[in-house]
Amino acid sequence: MRRRVDGVLDAFVDAKASAARAKGLPDDVPVALSDFLRAGGKRIRPLLCVLGWQAGGGVGERGLGQAVQVGAALEMFHAFCLVHDDVMDRSDTRRGRPTVHRALAARYRTGRTRELADTVGTSAAILAGDLALLWSDEILQAAEPGLEPAQAARLRPLVALMREEVMYGQCLDLLATGLPTPDTGPALTVIRYKTAKYTCERPLQIGAALAGADGPLHRALSAFALPLGEAFQLRDDVLGAFGHPQQTGKPALDDLREGKHTVLVSLALQAATPAQAPLLHALYGNPRLGEEDAETLRALLRDTGADRAVEHMITDRCAQAVTVLDGLPVPAVVREQLRALADRIAWRTA
Amino acid sequence: MRRRVDGVLDAFVDAKASAARAKGLPDDVPVALSDFLRAGGKRIRPLLCVLGWQAGGGVGERGLGQAVQVGAALEMFHAFCLVHDDVMDRSDTRRGRPTVHRALAARYRTGRTRELADTVGTSAAILAGDLALLWSDEILQAAEPGLEPAQAARLRPLVALMREEVMYGQCLDLLATGLPTPDTGPALTVIRYKTAKYTCERPLQIGAALAGADGPLHRALSAFALPLGEAFQLRDDVLGAFGHPQQTGKPALDDLREGKHTVLVSLALQAATPAQAPLLHALYGNPRLGEEDAETLRALLRDTGADRAVEHMITDRCAQAVTVLDGLPVPAVVREQLRALADRIAWRTA
Repeated sequence: MRRRVDGVLDAFVDAKASAARAKGLPDDVPVALSDFLRAGGKRIRPLLCVLGWQAGGGVGERGLGQAVQVGAALEMFHAFCLVHDDVMDRSDTRRGRPTVHRALAARYRTGRTRELADTVGTSAAILAGDLALLWSDEILQAAEPGLEPAQAARLRPLVALMREEVMYGQCLDLLATGLPTPDTGPALTVIRYKTAKYTCERPLQIGAALAGADGPLHRALSAFALPLGEAFQLRDDVLGAFGHPQQTGKPALDDLREGKHTVLVSLALQAATPAQAPLLHALYGNPRLGEEDAETLRALLRDTGADRAVEHMITDRCAQAVTVLDGLPVPAVVREQLRALADRIAWRTA
Repeated sequence: MRRRVDGVLDAFVDAKASAARAKGLPDDVPVALSDFLRAGGKRIRPLLCVLGWQAGGGVGERGLGQAVQVGAALEMFHAFCLVHDDVMDRSDTRRGRPTVHRALAARYRTGRTRELADTVGTSAAILAGDLALLWSDEILQAAEPGLEPAQAARLRPLVALMREEVMYGQCLDLLATGLPTPDTGPALTVIRYKTAKYTCERPLQIGAALAGADGPLHRALSAFALPLGEAFQLRDDVLGAFGHPQQTGKPALDDLREGKHTVLVSLALQAATPAQAPLLHALYGNPRLGEEDAETLRALLRDTGADRAVEHMITDRCAQAVTVLDGLPVPAVVREQLRALADRIAWRTA
């Protein structure tokens, strides 16, 4: 499945790079996106799109090809999100390699000061994200001529909703960054919009819509996907605080320095003693946090019990998703694949 | 015409703001985009879209409504371009008001350091641009159900082309920034992609496609639009160097400090004496350029004759466009409106 999705993406960006060169235009952006896509990624959204299509009763090579094509569009949209996210967070690495803006800055260093190269690299990455967004739309449109008008009519609003939801999730996340509170409510809302809907619910529903699924199945998929997606993001937060860079592909201190209003830190603030709270506030989100202070901060997250509380939340949410899954009116083979995916999402180390 | 286009845009962003509030989501982005759209702008692209539709033989209220709707989508796309452009250029003002990232940074100042507020403002503006791009697509899609399949099939590839061309134009512009040379060739390529195709050619052709125009008219519109669009950007460069902030709505020194590889500066470098050339290189693109040095730089642009050479190029290109216009097989009233627009574009002071 992954090979098929990547085949669509590789062929698309390679064609864009060739077309640019043929017109005498720079191929920097398609090449940078190609490198980025080939560097890895879990391809969860395309996989859920295809599983959603199967859950909705989709069968046959033609329909599968459409689901793969739409899944590839979701992955290209995700590339857009990540490229802009890394610009906004000023992240240096992703998937164990320099982020797109860093890679482009290095490319543009010749003949420029470091400061100018960084500016040009960041600007080029903003454009690369913009083009990834436009291209995700082209990949999606390439699927449309093969769709029935009713399928196309269901697909478009769901895709629009997914795109808008993740953008609002990003806004909420941004506005809470640097201002963490003991209130987990806002952190859970961020998780719902930024991850649960975007990563799990909508891709499944988009696939199901391609298969012509009805309202009850859409709601059942939602009841499965939302707790699973929340577990996915809670795991991400735990990995961001405690994970190993070699496994996550991200620097160990990025999340701690960024100071996002996560459920993890909210729970720590809730449980913190009067002595711990000011230390948590001082260390979490400090852009110049060193490894020693990071260890103090990690110890605080453990001593307050926040890490175990989040593990409980992950376990609860996975159990909830699996309970819904057991009652889902979908083929047994799809159920088993969704169950395996749920396990992988919740207990992953990268 | 402008009122109709703005009516579509206002209703759209107001509905987005209400929908966000109804879901408990922040309305910062739709409100910021609404403020930005209401602050001004020339609405050249929607106007050319409607004139292209009329040039293609479009008549009747229903078709006009579609052309206006598509024109509004082009204007929302343009808002996306400008918001990201201002982030990339770190511009402080646009249309005589703070740019979107500046306005958002001011909004997010409470409870944050200035540095953090600036970062959050810039990130929120990247998201605002992203949403403007997504929303331009929604506005476009809202026009589609009323279109014949053949119309829709012509519209989409042209819109995709327009979007991609302006992105590549921005890339070219970016890569040449800070490295101006006496070669006008690259500067003219930037102008073609970033402005002539994006601002004039494609909007006219998109309108014509809505009216079902054939290949010969598309080519004739292109022959009119490309020189006109080049004149538009050449005028922009002159205004950027010599214009008054009160008229342009942009700070007087932004363009000179930015150091873009414009035709104006290429011609100055071509004609510069051995004494003038190093001074030009030292001053143009200096991010800390003061008003006194700016006057020296403007004097250099004048003394080398570059300003007059660009005025000639503008005159030539307008004459070329008008000659094509005289032979265009379009209704006389459309021809007169295109002629008036050409005059306004070339000789504008803002």
